Formats: sequence, structure tokens, C-alpha cells
Amino acid sequence: MADAIDGFNFEQRHGKARVRVGRAWRNDDGRYFFVEWNVSISLLSDCVAAYVRDDNSDVVATDTMKNTVYVKAKECTQQLSVEDFAIELAKHFTSFYQQVHTAIVKIVEKPWERVSLEGEQHNHGFKLGSEKHTTEVIVKKSGALRLTSGIEGLALLKTTKSGFEGFIRDKYTVLPETRERILATEVTASWRYSYESVLTIPRKPLYFTERYLDVKKVLVETFFGTPKEGVYSPSVQSTLYDMAKTVLIRLSDISSVQLKMPNLHFLPVNLSSKDNTIVKFDDDVYLPTDEPHGSIEASLSRFWSKM
Amino acid sequence: MADAIDGFNFEQRHGKARVRVGRAWRNDDGRYFFVEWNVSISLLSDCVAAYVRDDNSDVVATDTMKNTVYVKAKECTQQLSVEDFAIELAKHFTSFYQQVHTAIVKIVEKPWERVSLEGEQHNHGFKLGSEKHTTEVIVKKSGALRLTSGIEGLALLKTTKSGFEGFIRDKYTVLPETRERILATEVTASWRYSYESVLTIPRKPLYFTERYLDVKKVLVETFFGTPKEGVYSPSVQSTLYDMAKTVLIRLSDISSVQLKMPNLHFLPVNLSSKDNTIVKFDDDVYLPTDEPHGSIEASLSRFWSKM
Amino acid sequence: MADAIDGFNFEQRHGKARVRVGRAWRNDDGRYFFVEWNVSISLLSDCVAAYVRDDNSDVVATDTMKNTVYVKAKECTQQLSVEDFAIELAKHFTSFYQQVHTAIVKIVEKPWERVSLEGEQHNHGFKLGSEKHTTEVIVKKSGALRLTSGIEGLALLKTTKSGFEGFIRDKYTVLPETRERILATEVTASWRYSYESVLTIPRKPLYFTERYLDVKKVLVETFFGTPKEGVYSPSVQSTLYDMAKTVLIRLSDISSVQLKMPNLHFLPVNLSSKDNTIVKFDDDVYLPTDEPHGSIEASLSRFWSKM
Amino acid sequence: MADAIDGFNFEQRHGKARVRVGRAWRNDDGRYFFVEWNVSISLLSDCVAAYVRDDNSDVVATDTMKNTVYVKAKECTQQLSVEDFAIELAKHFTSFYQQVHTAIVKIVEKPWERVSLEGEQHNHGFKLGSEKHTTEVIVKKSGALRLTSGIEGLALLKTTKSGFEGFIRDKYTVLPETRERILATEVTASWRYSYESVLTIPRKPLYFTERYLDVKKVLVETFFGTPKEGVYSPSVQSTLYDMAKTVLIRLSDISSVQLKMPNLHFLPVNLSSKDNTIVKFDDDVYLPTDEPHGSIEASLSRFWSKM
Repeated sequence: MADAIDGFNFEQRHGKARVRVGRAWRNDDGRYFFVEWNVSISLLSDCVAAYVRDDNSDVVATDTMKNTVYVKAKECTQQLSVEDFAIELAKHFTSFYQQVHTAIVKIVEKPWERVSLEGEQHNHGFKLGSEKHTTEVIVKKSGALRLTSGIEGLALLKTTKSGFEGFIRDKYTVLPETRERILATEVTASWRYSYESVLTIPRKPLYFTERYLDVKKVLVETFFGTPKEGVYSPSVQSTLYDMAKTVLIRLSDISSVQLKMPNLHFLPVNLSSKDNTIVKFDDDVYLPTDEPHGSIEASLSRFWSKM
Repeated sequence: MADAIDGFNFEQRHGKARVRVGRAWRNDDGRYFFVEWNVSISLLSDCVAAYVRDDNSDVVATDTMKNTVYVKAKECTQQLSVEDFAIELAKHFTSFYQQVHTAIVKIVEKPWERVSLEGEQHNHGFKLGSEKHTTEVIVKKSGALRLTSGIEGLALLKTTKSGFEGFIRDKYTVLPETRERILATEVTASWRYSYESVLTIPRKPLYFTERYLDVKKVLVETFFGTPKEGVYSPSVQSTLYDMAKTVLIRLSDISSVQLKMPNLHFLPVNLSSKDNTIVKFDDDVYLPTDEPHGSIEASLSRFWSKM
Repeated sequence: MADAIDGFNFEQRHGKARVRVGRAWRNDDGRYFFVEWNVSISLLSDCVAAYVRDDNSDVVATDTMKNTVYVKAKECTQQLSVEDFAIELAKHFTSFYQQVHTAIVKIVEKPWERVSLEGEQHNHGFKLGSEKHTTEVIVKKSGALRLTSGIEGLALLKTTKSGFEGFIRDKYTVLPETRERILATEVTASWRYSYESVLTIPRKPLYFTERYLDVKKVLVETFFGTPKEGVYSPSVQSTLYDMAKTVLIRLSDISSVQLKMPNLHFLPVNLSSKDNTIVKFDDDVYLPTDEPHGSIEASLSRFWSKM
Repeated sequence: MADAIDGFNFEQRHGKARVRVGRAWRNDDGRYFFVEWNVSISLLSDCVAAYVRDDNSDVVATDTMKNTVYVKAKECTQQLSVEDFAIELAKHFTSFYQQVHTAIVKIVEKPWERVSLEGEQHNHGFKLGSEKHTTEVIVKKSGALRLTSGIEGLALLKTTKSGFEGFIRDKYTVLPETRERILATEVTASWRYSYESVLTIPRKPLYFTERYLDVKKVLVETFFGTPKEGVYSPSVQSTLYDMAKTVLIRLSDISSVQLKMPNLHFLPVNLSSKDNTIVKFDDDVYLPTDEPHGSIEASLSRFWSKM
């Protein structure tokens, strides 16, 4: 991907970010489906002349990329997963333009959820939820594919069954050991599918949408444990590892998973003045803080991969 | 509240903002309850000497206000509504300090929701939801109360049953009339309760929590209409008015309601170059944008009030 | 402003927010001037029928308001202050539309500053600065004017000459007294000009731009004191009052000033474990925090006004 | 860095993010120096047992990392560059803990700038500026160093001397060619220094602070051209390349530079209704928008490196 220019090595990409598109589909029975996507496109292409010789003749204008998002959304006559849309877009750029050898498409789906009123699903009403479904697709001219999906903003908290003991104690250590604390985090997950060509991906239009829900379910269930008993977490590290491992064990077409789980601290509140104790902590009153926060991240894969 | 100082009129308040507190309660059966509040306190008090004579002897330190939040959270041995906690705090400041004649307490509750796994509620697991419950309480030394609650960030969207026609057309008007568009908004609601003294508020600990859910239900149902048919919206204005009116009709101890409903536009996508049509809109592909956005707000009250 | 509808009292306004406009002017000598404004318009108008009778015939479409911003920007053939542009816009709405009795225009100016290279001003190069110039203009059909200007995001810090002593000590008080601390704040200021009609404002095109710089200079100089000695601050309250008072004393056409000065705490760092002292504070190492922060605000006016 | 666990490959890191520290130094003549840093630490260490065997005995607690930031800040008895502080911190973790083989320290410096009043520098007064100095340091136990510094948030705009012509035109292209437009961007730059060991970095305490100013000067001057004439930009790509190349040519101990320069569009405003032209663009009225925006990024290096 690097070029030798003016005695230097040079790498470049260009694209369009924050392209927003909404797509509505209406069934024959009057039921609506709706998605809203925030699309970022990046192209690796042979257009060095634009950088070094003021010659734009090999440049795909970023405005054109934006237009293409709308054209492709129009062409999707049936609801499809955000992954499939990203693949469609990426394929277009690598096949339509001779200059483009690799297209990278990232999409964040806005979590519009169908509204239910008195237990009945609404035909055309949607409400914004919380965590977000994301995808990043890399397609090469050859059809080679790297497909990664993810979750952003999955905030989880448990009020008990968490501790942290036996860590290194040295002259900089103040933190007491505990077997009882609140554990809170905002999970950012990404997982790579094993499909390595645009030709081999599953044909079912909402396959990856279902997979997203599967992964989310595994992450949430493993984090919390059973409704009655829960599960003891001896560290964020241990819980993160269990979550990652369970994803790989349960979902066979996922080849690797990466989890970022900041430790969003809920500090015990103890307050005293010179003369008296003002608040004495008894697993009841906490000071939530995310500045600073612990940052724990890891990746687990079926093969040798790079984080 | 204004003082005459140095020939000028002077008004002041001081307080502590962004005080975060988490409070957990454990039932005898091992079930946990949990809230996280972001508290802002503002005191109107007789402490002008601090401003004009460098004399702090009448100043309640904002650090002391912060400590008090934790003391009062500790003292709440049972789960209570955010409104009741705000009232407790405000009462404390006006009764404990001779100098304080009015306390204003605003709280935003973080939307931690109990997790359900396979339909069973978790004993101690919580997940962050979307829209937020807020309250603003004003208490005077006399016990006079002004209690306002609200919702922040309730984002709603319907894919059909919305239009906008018959508005003023002049030489600055470009917008076409339509009977078919997406309607999307992020509702900010606040409503004032009719209780005017700290002595007369309902005793039930979660009374206002239930009321919050009642109001939210009314707003959502009125916005969307029935699951099958929906309801036609001839303007954001009309829908907003219906929502406000229904709140007042259904909920008798609410004396006024204010709604802010920005019109978050989903623009029809039509694209053409000099030579050809690239995308022709057919109620399918939209450009979502919130810059700029329409801003519609109104208040409806049982008595003569100020917006 | 309130109407009696369905047995309720009703108040409403509608408008367009976040309308962004850039305006460039080119002098005959090739020198460029440039501003970028973020405009919000709100109209108080006789259009209750839109809310209650689905009749939009008295509604100025918010899209039309947006267009008008561009028309008016076009019509400004010479650079003008953000205040003058806001007044022009507001006047237009109240005079052009019979239904509109009051127009409220708020603008935030993006702080593009002309670049200097080696001490020489650039003809057409600009760089983004920090604090922002704001204005809020209210114009009635009669020509009555309320003109308020402001500063947002003016962050100031002094490393010494600040203390806080002699405040109320009670059983909730932990904060020690001090004569040596860091004082940091982010000033939000707004000031009202005494011009009460659109006919009486100064004619000089950049009058209010200069006034903005005058106020900022007074605020900064009063906050810091002289370069060598500085000035001792016995409380945020005292410093805020001095700043407000100096504005009114120095600038005769400003009738009132409001300052919000959160106390952005720089906490002394003292760390110790059970066994040893890890860090002992010596006016050297601080923990900056803005959650929570003190909130101090006050207004000072030449006449009896409401905060 | 990867371990084979449970039949999977595993990579992990943990640390503390958003550790804020302020450091003040007072000279004998009463002049103060001050920095505020936001520190993130990430350790690559042998602590897999915490993940897979619930054994924390090799874990450096993230709370301990936070404390260490304050200890090291205390130990810096003279003002130093953010780069030197980051290296000190990183060296500590790799040398003090047997388990830690690599430490990654990222710091963002808050742009507090000394205030000048009437041309005279203030002894202890600071005001927040705009763009930020950043650094990322990677230190291995061997002393091997990777030192990268950067700028965030450098927003630049020129009102003329910019165009975009001759790009690919196809059936998705709408954008007209132009030789006259506004060019605006928010530069994010990072550059790697050639020092590859903690032993070989320059000893001057503020060496890297000066280098930061040198790079910023080169970037700004190359972007804008001379004050009178400026320089024509045929594309963001071309301007970016000139900026990167000039950095490498002028600053010999920088081995590579990466620039991200989103194209923040200022769209020409043309408005018309069916009947008449409302606004006709004449290089005067623009619609600024950053959603969507072009994204142009590239890296230039003296040797074969990875972007």
C-alpha cells in the first residue's frame, strides 16, 4: 500500500465520514421497517498523483462516495443487515473503480426499536434504545473480505458478586482488597466472522442481525450469571475472559472477539472530619466516577491474530 | 431576592453541581435495588457579605453541600423516588441553615434498568436504558414547594402518518407541502405537580416514580396512536398539543406540562446531475439531519402560569 | 402571550435552531473578512390554530426561517457585528409577518481568528480560537428591543493568590480553610445593553464587536490583577462581584451583567497507605476535577431586574 | 505478546485512563509555571492467570498506576515536556515490575497559556487556548522506545486560494468543478521521533515542547502560504502532502508524520423556489457542515513504516 515518493515512503487513504441515511420499507400489509445508518467510507486507491502532482484524474470525489450511499440504499428493496449493506457498498467501490484496490466501510446503526403498546407491536412507530450495532467491512478487488461486527455502549452494572483481591502490593498501593463491590462497565465488543470472501457469506438477509443479538445475549448472560445466583467476578479480567471464551465456544462462525471493558468505579463513600465520622460505608452509598477509570481489554481468537 | 449594593441591584446564588451518588438497597431475600443520581444544588441565601466584604461567615461551603448528599443518601434506608430524595435534600438546607431561604435541587437519574434473562428478573443485574427521569425541586423556608419532574432524551420516530400543509407561502418559502413524511423528535418534557407544600406530598415512597411512568406512557401513546392504525399528525404543533392535553386530562395532580419537541428532519433524498436522475425519492431513502432542526415548544397549564 | 384553550392556559413558540451560515467579504485590496454563525430563531406568533385546529395557515415554516438567514446574510454587503445581524433578522420576522409579535434570535459566533505569520496578518487565513461571542436579541413588533451579549467558554486559572476561609463549619463540613489554592473557572458572561429600541442602537457596524472585546478585557484583568502582583481572591464570590461591578463602572451602555463562574476544583494531592505517606501536598501536585464543581452565579444591574 | 490458552490465542492489556494531574512550579522570583495533563497508561504484562485462573498475584492494580502518576509528578522538581513525563512514567512501570514488559503512556496536555495584559506576561495567570499537544510513548523493558507526539484540534480555514478540479466523473457524480472555494479542516497530526531508546533522547527539559511548536509552525505556514499571496490548494490531498513533506524536510529528528485532515465543507448557498431565485451564490454566503465530511489521511516516513 505504500509508495516511494520524493525519497519518502507514502501511504494514503481518502473517503467520506458521517454520511447519514435512513431507509424505510413498507410491507404489503402496511407494516413498516426502518433503519438509520451512519456510514464512513475509506478507499485505498491509486491516486498518488493528486498528492504529489496536483492531478486529480484518479480521485473518486468524496461527494460521489456520499451519493453512492444513497443509490445503494435505494437499490436495497428489502430490509437487510447493516453488515450486508456495508459489503454491498464496499464491493461497489472496488469493482466500479479501477483505481480502488481496497474499500473500508464502517457503519454505526442507530438503535431505533419498534414500539410496543400494551404488548402489541406498532406498525410504524420506533423509539431510540441504548447500545449500538456497528460493523467494519474491508473488501479487496479480489473479493477478499474481512468482516467485523460490534457493539458500542453496552453499559452493565451489578450491585454484588464482585471483588478484587491478591493483587501486587507495593509502596504505591493504597487500594484495599475486597470481596464485595459494585462492578460496572461499558462494554465495547467487536468480533470477526470467519467468512473470508464476499462470495461465501450467508445469503439470509438478516443473518448478521440475528448474530448480533446472539453475541449480545452471550455477553450479557455471562457477565451477570443466573437471575437468582449470579456469578462471582474475581476481577474484570476474569469476567472479560469468560465472556470472550463463551462467544467463541457458542458461535462457530466467529473467529475472534475483542472486548474493551473499562472499570467504571463506584467508590465506597466514607466521610469524616477531624472530630467525627460523617458517613461510614456499609455497601450502600457509592461515589460513581469515570474519571479516572480502569481500562481492561483483550482479544481471543481461534488462530494467531493481532489485537 | 435582590439586594441593593454599591448603588446596584444584586442577585446571587451558589451551590454544587454534578454531585454523583449511587445508592444500593438489599432486601432480606437478597434482591437488590439500585439508583444512580446526578445532583445539583443551588442555594438562595443571605451571604452577600462574601461578595462585597470578603466575609465568608454566612457561606455554606459547596463542599459541605456535596457531603450532605451522601449523608442524606445514607439516611434513606428504603428505596425512594428521585423526587422524594430531592425534597429531603432541599428541606435540609432551608431548615438547617438560618441563612438559606430557598433551596433548588435538580437531579438526573441514570436509567439503570433491571436485567431480565429468559424472562426472569435478575436479582442484582442492571443495564443502562435510554431516556432519563429528571426532577427540579424548589423549597422555601416556609415549606412552600414547587415540584417539577421531567423526561430527557425520549427519541421517537414514525415512518408514516405525518404531513405538513397549508402553511404561509411567501418569497422565502421553498418547502413543498406533504401528507407523507417521517416524523422524528427527541421529547424533553417537564411537568409541575400541584403539591405546594412539603407537608402535602403523597407518602407512598415510589409514588412519583410511578407517575413518571404514567406520563411517559401517555406521551408515547399519544404520539404514535394505536398499533394498527396510528394517528395522522398534521404538524409537530398539533401532535405536541395533543400530548400535553392528554397528560393534563389523565393525570389530575399535574397542574402544568411543558413540551419541547425539536423536529428532527428526515429529508427526502433526490439526487440528479445535469444529465440524469441518480436517486428519485419514493418514501424510501432519507437524509436524517439535526442541524438545523425545527424547534417547537409549548406549555399547557390548569391556571395562569409563565412558560 | 398565553391563550385560553380548552379550559387551559396555553403558551407556545416555534422556530429553527442550529442554522449555520458562513459569510465572507472581500475588500478591494484582496483582504478577506469572515464570520461563521450558528443561528437559532424563535417566534412568538398568532398561530394557535395549528395546535388546536390542525390549521397551519398562520404558521411560518421553520424551513422558511432558515432560508431567511441566508437571504439576510447575502444582503449584508459589509462586515457587521453578530448583534447587528441578529437585530436585522429579528426585525424582519416581526415586520414581514403580521402574525409574529416577537422574534427571539440567538447566535453563537465561531471564534475564527485571523492568522498572523511572523507578525504579519494573513489576507485570507483564519484559525479557530477558544472562547465564543454570543448574543440574544428580542424584538417586538413595536420595535422594542432587548439586546444581550455574552461570552461562553472563557476558561481562566491562577496558580496562587486565592483562598477560602471563615465559612460556616458544622457537622457536615470537611473542607479545611486555606489561603493558598489554585483558582480555576470557565466564565459564562452575559450583559444587557441599555438600548431599548431598534431605532436607538449605535450605527457603527462593528460597535458591538468592540464592546465584546472591552468586556472580555475587563473580566480578564479583574480576575487576574496586575501581571506582577495579581490580586488576592478570598472567594469565587468576591472575585465574581468585582468583575461584574467593574463592567458596569467602566462601560456605560451596559445596564446589567450576569456571571456564572463554576469553581473548577484543583484538589491538593495527598496520598498515604496504612504504612507510609506516598505523596504529601506542597502546593505542587493537584487533582483537577470538574465533577462535582462549585456553581457560583450572580447578576448586577443598574435597575431592578430579574435574574 | 499472545498466549495460547484453552486452545485459543489470547492477547491482553490493562491500565488506567483519564488520570488528571496538575503540576505547578514556582520560581525563586515568584513566577509560576503550570501544566495540566490527562494521562492514560496501558501495561502489557505477564498476568494471564488473572484472566484464566482467578489469580491476581501478577496484576498491577490500576489504582496503583493512578497513584504512581502523582508520585512521579511530585518527583519532577522542574518543569518538563509532556513527552519527558510520559517517558519517565513508562520507564517506571517496565523497570519496577518484573511482570511488565511494555508500558504505553498517552497524555493530552490541556492548552493553558500564560496570560498577557497590556503586553506584559502575567506571573501566575493562565487562559485556555484551543489546539492540544499530545504524546504517546511506548517503552519496553529493554529501554527500547517509540516516541510519537501530536496535535489535536488545530482548526484552519482559508476563504480563497482553493479548488478541486479534474476528478473522476461518472454516473454518481454531482459535484461541480471549482477553482474558488473555502477550505477548512481540523488537523490531527502525529509524528514519530527517531529516538529509539530511552537513553538517547535529548536532555534539554523542554526540548520536545519546542519541537511541538516547530511542527505546528510548519503545518500552519504550509497550509496558508505567505500572508499576502497565500498558496493555491488544488486539493486537500495536495496541501496535506506539502505539509507532511515540509515537516520531514525541516525537522531532522522526526522520522515519520501522519496527518488526518477532514474536509469540513462550506457549501455554496443557492436557493430557489419554483418561481424565483432566492439566494444566488457569489463567493459570499456558505453553509458550513461537518456531517458528512471528507476524510483525507496520509503518512509520510523516512523508512518503510506502517500507517
